[in-house]
Formats: sequence, C-alpha cells, structure tokens
Amino acid sequence: MPIPIMDEIKVIEIKKSVFADNEKDADALRAELKQKGVFLLNLMSAPGSGKTTTLIQLINRIKDKVRVAVMEADIDSDVDAVKIKEATGVPSIQLHTGGMCHLDAEMTRQGLDNIKTGDMDLVILENVGNLVCPAEFDTGATRNAMILSVPEGDDKPLKYPLMFTVCDLVIINKTDTLPYFDFDMDKCRTNILKRNPNAEIIPISAKTGDGLDTLAEWLLHEVNSLNPKL
Amino acid sequence: MPIPIMDEIKVIEIKKSVFADNEKDADALRAELKQKGVFLLNLMSAPGSGKTTTLIQLINRIKDKVRVAVMEADIDSDVDAVKIKEATGVPSIQLHTGGMCHLDAEMTRQGLDNIKTGDMDLVILENVGNLVCPAEFDTGATRNAMILSVPEGDDKPLKYPLMFTVCDLVIINKTDTLPYFDFDMDKCRTNILKRNPNAEIIPISAKTGDGLDTLAEWLLHEVNSLNPKL
Repeated sequence: MPIPIMDEIKVIEIKKSVFADNEKDADALRAELKQKGVFLLNLMSAPGSGKTTTLIQLINRIKDKVRVAVMEADIDSDVDAVKIKEATGVPSIQLHTGGMCHLDAEMTRQGLDNIKTGDMDLVILENVGNLVCPAEFDTGATRNAMILSVPEGDDKPLKYPLMFTVCDLVIINKTDTLPYFDFDMDKCRTNILKRNPNAEIIPISAKTGDGLDTLAEWLLHEVNSLNPKL
Repeated sequence: MPIPIMDEIKVIEIKKSVFADNEKDADALRAELKQKGVFLLNLMSAPGSGKTTTLIQLINRIKDKVRVAVMEADIDSDVDAVKIKEATGVPSIQLHTGGMCHLDAEMTRQGLDNIKTGDMDLVILENVGNLVCPAEFDTGATRNAMILSVPEGDDKPLKYPLMFTVCDLVIINKTDTLPYFDFDMDKCRTNILKRNPNAEIIPISAKTGDGLDTLAEWLLHEVNSLNPKL
C-alpha cells in the first residue's frame, strides 16, 4: 500500500475553541470519522513517558498494513513531528497549542483539516504531555490510550484517576528499567483496574521493542473492527 | 527547636477561585507572607518525577534549623501527606483540587489558612503534577522550583518553556539512573539556561541522597535571605 509523504513538516497554530458543548462536538466528529472509515487514536501521557519513541516503533510495525498519519500536539517546538517523519516516513504534522494544556474536539478537527483523511485508515493524535487536562476533554477519538512509564511509579492511577478511567488502553512503557525502580507491576495492574475494570494493559519497552508486537496487534484489531474491509 | 505535630492529616477541599486578577492577588499574598517572615516554596514537576521523595530527604536535612510545614496538592488521594508526615514528622496537610490542574494564589491561601503560619519559617507547596498549567498561575510563592527527572529526557525545557522560565531553581532528580537513559546533562543545562539564564540547577538523587546537602544549603540560604533573624 503506497504511503503518501508530505514535502515538509506542517506546523498548525491551533486556535481556542468557540464551541460550548465539547461532548456533542466530539460525538459528531467521531461519527464523521467512522463514516469516512478513519480510526482516530488519542494517545496521552505525562511528559517524558516515551510517547514519540513508542509511536515510531509501533508505526514501523503497522505502516504496511494500514495507512497512518500522525498529529503531534505540543505547546511549542516541532521536534516530535520531525522525529516521527524521519523514523517512519509517514505523514506527520505538528499542532502548536500556544500554551493550552489539552486538545478538545474542535482543536483536533483543526489538525485533521490539514491531513488528507480520505487517504488514511488511522490517524494518531499525540496529545499534550499532561495527565490532568487532556483526560477532561473528549477529542472525538475512536479510542483513548495512555502511556505510564515505569519511572513514574505504580501509584499514578490513584493520583490521576480520570486519565485511567477514560482510557481503553494503558501502555506500561520502559519495562527494561524495572530492575532500577521500585515499581510493582501487579500493584500497578490492580490500581489501573480499580479505576477502569475494562482497561486493556500492555507492558512494553519502546527501547528494546519488547511488547511492541502485542501493541501493534491490539491496534490493528481495533482499526479493523471499525473498518472490516482492510 | 520544637516541631509542632498535627494529630492527623487534614484534607482540605480546595474551591475554585473567584478573583479575576490572580497576579495582583499573588503579589498581595507574597507581601503578607514576607511580613510574617514565612517563606513559601512552590515545588512543581511532571507526575512521577520524585517530588515527595525529594521533599522527605530535604526536610530531614533542614527541620532542625527552620520550622517547616508542607501542603500536598493532589487531584485525589492523601498518600503524599501521610508519607511526608510519617517520614519527617513535620506538619503536613493535603489539598484536594477536585480535578483542577493547578493552584492559584487564592487556592494556595485556602491551604495556608489551615496551617499555623505564625509558627512557621518555611511552607512548602507541592503543586499538582503537571508541567503546563501550574506554570501559568502565580501562587504567591517566594520562590518557584521544579523537578525534572532523568527518565523524562533532556529535551523537556524545549517542550515546556514556560515552566522552565518561571522557576528560580531546577532540580534534576534520579541522577542514579543516568547510566540507563539517553540523558545528556550538559545538553539539559544548556536547554534550561536558554529558557532561563538565571536558573539555579542542582542535580540530585533522592534515592541515594546525592546532591541533597547542596539542595538543603540552597533552600536554607534563600529562607535566611528573607528572614535574617534565623
């Protein structure tokens, strides 16, 4: 399947939303995307949990099976979109939030307007690094995922309850560093499931590649459920 | 110097501020605290950077020299205030923000109202774990400090510019894990100083205690500058 490559990294300056009812807007966006056969994955995490490295590993495992584009939200800088494009070759744009700590559905739509969604099966939104605000705003995504990294600690589901409640998938990253941190995987699972009994939990190391095949399988299965023609 | 111990951990439910002009309110709070001889340190970081562990190490090094109390802000749970009190014996209260992603001056004042500030030289506010929103709201603190931990990466000053701009002190924690991460200390220093040429930078390991004496000296010096009678 041919992968469309953009000529350069687009940087989109995201404007504040004017819509009062984000939930309604998010549901509308979700319905539109479903009709187009586009799966939108909203990936959230704290700063430094390894979102970009995980995406690179993941995209390189799925890009021959689905047409993928990436939207990288950041307060500033374009380093992530450049990294993704260089390492995977898939279209990648940078969304500048200008200090805003999250994206809502309208802001997500501003990003999507700059992607040829008709040519895509999957768009991945890398949300702003923040465990608080992004959890409060539905982006219109088909699925929500978050990364918790081992160095952050197994108690995070207790401290940031909403984030763990809204996510369909919790990726536990940096498992290669388990020997150096006081992180109890069983306790972490229990804490996550306390917040969200239906959460899928996949431990990975984006550095070594461990668990990435399982993650890729999960995502391909989800995308395929939306769009069985693939 | 006797250390006042509270009977139990108080949990304060913080209400949303009604003040329109937070900057003015923050300046007023700062002036009041100065008059009382109380130094307020606002400690910020991403989730899981080791704020609580650092505080325990730090407080145990200074509690015989200054009278310290701690306010632990969290969206939920009271684990941090309990930990601090058990490990240091100093008064510690928990501030529940009820989903709010930061504290402003009025919210900080709600916490201070529950501490006998007249008996204190230093109050440490552990802000909500978030590199975005807390940087935007002046709490009225005498000094702002933040912790960046090695696993988060040396590029964080580029991605969260405001946080690094508003902090007088950047603590680089988890230096014991430097061998396991691709973290360049010199590059990190350069990135921090690009955002804030006046930032003090102190590398530590809250786990091993490395650098904690330097951190304690810095804080005692700052507190003493405000209140030379100590």
